[in-house]
Amino acid sequence: EEIKLVYDDIMATRGTNWVNNFWKVLATQPVLLKRTWEGVKSVMADGALDSLTKEMIYIAVSATNGCNYCTNSHTAGARSKGMTDDMFAELMAIVGMANQTNSLADGFQVEVDMQFKNGGRR
Amino acid sequence: EEIKLVYDDIMATRGTNWVNNFWKVLATQPVLLKRTWEGVKSVMADGALDSLTKEMIYIAVSATNGCNYCTNSHTAGARSKGMTDDMFAELMAIVGMANQTNSLADGFQVEVDMQFKNGGRR
Amino acid sequence: EEIKLVYDDIMATRGTNWVNNFWKVLATQPVLLKRTWEGVKSVMADGALDSLTKEMIYIAVSATNGCNYCTNSHTAGARSKGMTDDMFAELMAIVGMANQTNSLADGFQVEVDMQFKNGGRR
Amino acid sequence: EEIKLVYDDIMATRGTNWVNNFWKVLATQPVLLKRTWEGVKSVMADGALDSLTKEMIYIAVSATNGCNYCTNSHTAGARSKGMTDDMFAELMAIVGMANQTNSLADGFQVEVDMQFKNGGRR
Amino acid sequence: EEIKLVYDDIMATRGTNWVNNFWKVLATQPVLLKRTWEGVKSVMADGALDSLTKEMIYIAVSATNGCNYCTNSHTAGARSKGMTDDMFAELMAIVGMANQTNSLADGFQVEVDMQFKNGGRR
Amino acid sequence: EEIKLVYDDIMATRGTNWVNNFWKVLATQPVLLKRTWEGVKSVMADGALDSLTKEMIYIAVSATNGCNYCTNSHTAGARSKGMTDDMFAELMAIVGMANQTNSLADGFQVEVDMQFKNGGRR
Repeated sequence: EEIKLVYDDIMATRGTNWVNNFWKVLATQPVLLKRTWEGVKSVMADGALDSLTKEMIYIAVSATNGCNYCTNSHTAGARSKGMTDDMFAELMAIVGMANQTNSLADGFQVEVDMQFKNGGRR
Repeated sequence: EEIKLVYDDIMATRGTNWVNNFWKVLATQPVLLKRTWEGVKSVMADGALDSLTKEMIYIAVSATNGCNYCTNSHTAGARSKGMTDDMFAELMAIVGMANQTNSLADGFQVEVDMQFKNGGRR
Repeated sequence: EEIKLVYDDIMATRGTNWVNNFWKVLATQPVLLKRTWEGVKSVMADGALDSLTKEMIYIAVSATNGCNYCTNSHTAGARSKGMTDDMFAELMAIVGMANQTNSLADGFQVEVDMQFKNGGRR
Repeated sequence: EEIKLVYDDIMATRGTNWVNNFWKVLATQPVLLKRTWEGVKSVMADGALDSLTKEMIYIAVSATNGCNYCTNSHTAGARSKGMTDDMFAELMAIVGMANQTNSLADGFQVEVDMQFKNGGRR
Repeated sequence: EEIKLVYDDIMATRGTNWVNNFWKVLATQPVLLKRTWEGVKSVMADGALDSLTKEMIYIAVSATNGCNYCTNSHTAGARSKGMTDDMFAELMAIVGMANQTNSLADGFQVEVDMQFKNGGRR
Repeated sequence: EEIKLVYDDIMATRGTNWVNNFWKVLATQPVLLKRTWEGVKSVMADGALDSLTKEMIYIAVSATNGCNYCTNSHTAGARSKGMTDDMFAELMAIVGMANQTNSLADGFQVEVDMQFKNGGRR
């Protein structure tokens, strides 16, 4: 059935023989399961960015949100794709620094520089 | 004086002849200015991760926090380091997907799989 | 005494014979306990929105904040008021999608359309 | 072309003759545009929850995240679907209360009651 | 009428002759206006913590949430109560540092030390 | 070695004979450990604000972010510096109120009053 097809695709895509709890929980709603998996599969595939970089970006968002499940699963995912201890430590250092300067910029109410508008393209 | 030294280092490190508002605002407190700049300079230098990847991680955190100044400045920074439209679009797609699945994992109260504990290392 | 009166009102309002940990923790400060309970009681009563819809809105905020206690207690509350598995799944799908598009709108720095200003009333 | 098809579907689904900035910004990446629109369209259609309730849940998440664009667009959307001033005020009251009690539960480190585990189902 | 009474109390409590936009917006719903004002008035009065300390705590939360209105209004409030530039700079330094270490603790998934449980009271 | 020096400084600064998990986790990356500790030490020292007020501001940010580790450790820290139950309860009441009004200001899209611009200095 529909759920089994998604599970099979998850395992085939990842080269594993098990499905993690996140997908099992979504399986109560096959439509939500299918759409979420297809989104994740498409977004996380190699493209202009390689899949390891993508996993690290996922960790950055998850650590910022304080999402325990997501931090665990994507840290495991990034390690399986080759993230070393040094890469993880640098990733965390940036995430910490970004959260620090984000709150400073908001707290000091810094105005956007003309040079930065429109992504720096004039 | 102290502020001028930091400003000079910012411009030298970046190869620019101007200093953005964030640092000007911090300059009301030279100690905070100096420590923050030294932290950012150290964290954002090439290392186990290259500096373009680091800028994109900064954007991921800033977009998640909804920090307008930071999103603007680091998007400009990433573009100046070579981020293409395709790379930015993939970055945004991951950030959006990660924020979606973060809230799903928290809302469904998903338990961490044994396989993911300790960063996937057993 | 004051705490007992609040506890009795909590149990009477909910038709239960126990008080959950949240209120027990607040009871160290009777003024905070009383004000918070009166606020929650007033806000969550049927009004222009029915109380089940209100519980689901509470879940949406709690899942977005990643507040584990609040997600648990209000999911239980919504179920006791009639939330089905399908309703919960749709709720989660919206929460996930909203968190996704929120970060996309912030990351892409989308400008508010004239038509949306002032809540769409012109 | 692909973008035009999505734009046409947006306008047809909403019964409008214009497309808001959010979609125009995503159109730089047709794949992201298409997937996001299809997700939003599917999630926001009437189902176990009616589409007005869904718009209000979207506002709850957007106000919690402080996403200005999203709050504007979905408040306009909810009004066009029949949200009255009273309904909006009650919605805001819940969102405010939920954000208050979320931080109280996290700050006081309240333990989840046995009765709330597993969504209140024993 | 009811709204006027609240407005008068706001001005009397603050020793001002104007009411800021936040309260004017809430005035569309007199019940919400009254409850929110009474909560703020009670919470912000001198007590175990003085009112200047309270304003700075308010700024800390507002900068963390990136709430522009709240950061502006409570920074003005704190200044009117005696916050100096040095105090503001130290406040911001803590807020920035706390946001940094919060994301580090979440990203590294640090376990709570036995010594810290129950607020450090054994 | 480097790590031992930082550990010794942590224990000397705090007058304790143990190091908490946060620093042990950072010790996998001595540079990150050293910079983070030096930042925290500098920021949290008595200055224009006393160190107890600083610990309470740290708690305010941590409760807002829902960072469990940080809330635990800084609540213990504040208690060891003299925070009473009444002070903690008032702190929590402000944090809760600020999170409430932050979401109300964002949800109602309140415009910043002229009088509040530039921190209330005209």
